[in-house]
Amino acid sequence: MLVNDWKEFLIPYEQAVEELKIKFKSMRKQYRSKKEYSPIEFVTGRVKEVSSILEKAKKLDIPLNKIAEEMEDIAGIRIMCQFVEDIYKVVQLIRQRDGKDLKIVYEKDYVKNKKDSGYRSYHVIIKYPVQTADGEVEILAEIQIRTLAMNFWATVEHSLNYKYKQSIPTEIKERLKRAAELAFLLDEEMSEIKEEIIEAQKMFEEKSGI
Amino acid sequence: MLVNDWKEFLIPYEQAVEELKIKFKSMRKQYRSKKEYSPIEFVTGRVKEVSSILEKAKKLDIPLNKIAEEMEDIAGIRIMCQFVEDIYKVVQLIRQRDGKDLKIVYEKDYVKNKKDSGYRSYHVIIKYPVQTADGEVEILAEIQIRTLAMNFWATVEHSLNYKYKQSIPTEIKERLKRAAELAFLLDEEMSEIKEEIIEAQKMFEEKSGI
Amino acid sequence: MLVNDWKEFLIPYEQAVEELKIKFKSMRKQYRSKKEYSPIEFVTGRVKEVSSILEKAKKLDIPLNKIAEEMEDIAGIRIMCQFVEDIYKVVQLIRQRDGKDLKIVYEKDYVKNKKDSGYRSYHVIIKYPVQTADGEVEILAEIQIRTLAMNFWATVEHSLNYKYKQSIPTEIKERLKRAAELAFLLDEEMSEIKEEIIEAQKMFEEKSGI
Amino acid sequence: MLVNDWKEFLIPYEQAVEELKIKFKSMRKQYRSKKEYSPIEFVTGRVKEVSSILEKAKKLDIPLNKIAEEMEDIAGIRIMCQFVEDIYKVVQLIRQRDGKDLKIVYEKDYVKNKKDSGYRSYHVIIKYPVQTADGEVEILAEIQIRTLAMNFWATVEHSLNYKYKQSIPTEIKERLKRAAELAFLLDEEMSEIKEEIIEAQKMFEEKSGI
Repeated sequence: MLVNDWKEFLIPYEQAVEELKIKFKSMRKQYRSKKEYSPIEFVTGRVKEVSSILEKAKKLDIPLNKIAEEMEDIAGIRIMCQFVEDIYKVVQLIRQRDGKDLKIVYEKDYVKNKKDSGYRSYHVIIKYPVQTADGEVEILAEIQIRTLAMNFWATVEHSLNYKYKQSIPTEIKERLKRAAELAFLLDEEMSEIKEEIIEAQKMFEEKSGI
Repeated sequence: MLVNDWKEFLIPYEQAVEELKIKFKSMRKQYRSKKEYSPIEFVTGRVKEVSSILEKAKKLDIPLNKIAEEMEDIAGIRIMCQFVEDIYKVVQLIRQRDGKDLKIVYEKDYVKNKKDSGYRSYHVIIKYPVQTADGEVEILAEIQIRTLAMNFWATVEHSLNYKYKQSIPTEIKERLKRAAELAFLLDEEMSEIKEEIIEAQKMFEEKSGI
Repeated sequence: MLVNDWKEFLIPYEQAVEELKIKFKSMRKQYRSKKEYSPIEFVTGRVKEVSSILEKAKKLDIPLNKIAEEMEDIAGIRIMCQFVEDIYKVVQLIRQRDGKDLKIVYEKDYVKNKKDSGYRSYHVIIKYPVQTADGEVEILAEIQIRTLAMNFWATVEHSLNYKYKQSIPTEIKERLKRAAELAFLLDEEMSEIKEEIIEAQKMFEEKSGI
Repeated sequence: MLVNDWKEFLIPYEQAVEELKIKFKSMRKQYRSKKEYSPIEFVTGRVKEVSSILEKAKKLDIPLNKIAEEMEDIAGIRIMCQFVEDIYKVVQLIRQRDGKDLKIVYEKDYVKNKKDSGYRSYHVIIKYPVQTADGEVEILAEIQIRTLAMNFWATVEHSLNYKYKQSIPTEIKERLKRAAELAFLLDEEMSEIKEEIIEAQKMFEEKSGI
């Protein structure tokens, strides 16, 4: 594809990312304005760069004319949560929309089943309709849902992978795993506190007879 | 309604405005990236301010609990075009989406049937579904489509109305009408040139045998 | 220059456009929040596309290594006003900042001295300091200040120039000039009304002894 | 102060936050476009809400007419880094600008000297000039620089403090401290890996004789 073809090809993906970012950010605002706890802490999004699309296509042996159907993360949305439990609430919010403004293709729970590398995240692959001047186009998008600790670890791993071009030395790999465990413990500790908060609040409300 | 209730009430409208702005701006990008002429020159949007909602509700005798159903322009999108003809192309683009991401409630053609004041614009009232944490909400939104000259005139008239609180002195009203006529002539002149462009281009293509 | 060099070269320009857009938009908000009339109606900005930079460099015989010093409109800000008089108020606001966050290089008043083509606008060429990782960079930027009618006409002329590659046929050129005159009359008519508004308001205030 | 006075009072703060966000985000883009490692991972900003300003003024006994001079975090910028070492590089970048587009008032290194609660972050309090319609205004702003792990922990602590209105029960406080230690270990582990990366890269370059 020529530069201009790529530009045109990516337009519905850019549109999808912009729309989805606004949609999930707005959910957060809703909780806030109701003075309720928001399971969404913040939202980011990006369209994969052309060089990364080409690299991935080569690695996974996807012919260029199959990219739209087979590459699921050209449009990527990332939703960050404070607690592990919030991840599942966000998944629930997405499932509610299934068949409305998006369609769920499949889900992958790397939180309960973490990858060997230590990677944890919940992925939801969706189909998302975008209206263009030539009619409706349905594109694939990947929504990643993670705690801040999972995101922290994944960001560092990603930049190491980028530097080492996917072949991180064994020793560093081991250290990364230990770091992933620390991140996991941090999430556990935080979830533990979360329970206590809820209990403490209940106790308080009962005592004061609210 | 209290301040916080208004805040919550307006959230789906703000979301709709953000989504629709991105959707129409993206159409413009598409035409550009295909090196085609875009009938959309630029797009703006706004949510009506609470004070203006209250004023309008009072003027039109709309009870507060009927505002969502009866006030059509709480969410407002404005699409500016270069030529009068482009307005109808944009209307066509919106009709294409009818039943997809939006529903057309009705249309009003103040371009062919201008208001007494001199106001010209094409209005499309739509229903637009917004996904919230509590499920889908369908809101009303008004899309105004105008040439730059129509917009120029309407902006000035609006600010005069604001200053005179709807009762512009007769003499100024007359001058405003004359200005509206000049704006109309300007659009006519421009459309005339548009035809010539198309003719000139055809001539050129025939002569050079493309 | 290679694609990546251009990307890097344009970063301070993009930053300047973003900063200046926010700065002038914020002025508008200030007037509004004080319930005062804002001479600024709206603000847009853009960085010139690489293809247009190259075209202009060729046309004006600017060598590539002199582009930063000699091409004044790589970073462009456009401020739209409702009335011709507002243009000079905005110029005044810019002059107030001279030596603070920007430096005025020169001004060109195409409002009082319109171009042969019919083009009217006030141009202020500034130097604007941008902080980068390698220290401060001072770039050139062009601020265009116009009424909505001037902008309307200029937008149409620009698109015709684009289509005809700078050589608009004489007949169409004549029609464009007539359109420019209509736009001029429209501005005159509006300014006339503006005077009346101010007079009417004064009369009202005197009568009611405010 | 009335609602409208607050709105007006906060305008230069909003402007400062927007400008500073763009300025630091642009630094990140610069590193990326040069294919260099960016010490800035991402940037957020916010203006303190009126209710929080009032609460803090009451707590710290700041009279309302001294808020602009004495409250340092009405405008807040947060810069997130991947590694602890990056924090000091970002501080260096800010010091470079001292006397240019901002003035450093003072710095507080809660990274080397963490708070009793476990809080770690580097704070730089600056004076930032904002151009308004009435001339230049200099406002105070707080820049917080942290690793992602520090930010993760601080975000959770903040939400607990919000829930418990500053009086977190001792047991939970203890657990929070343990979590802070885990976050600290995570940062240590990551810094350790960072050193190894640099060493590994050097070894590689020597071996291959680049």
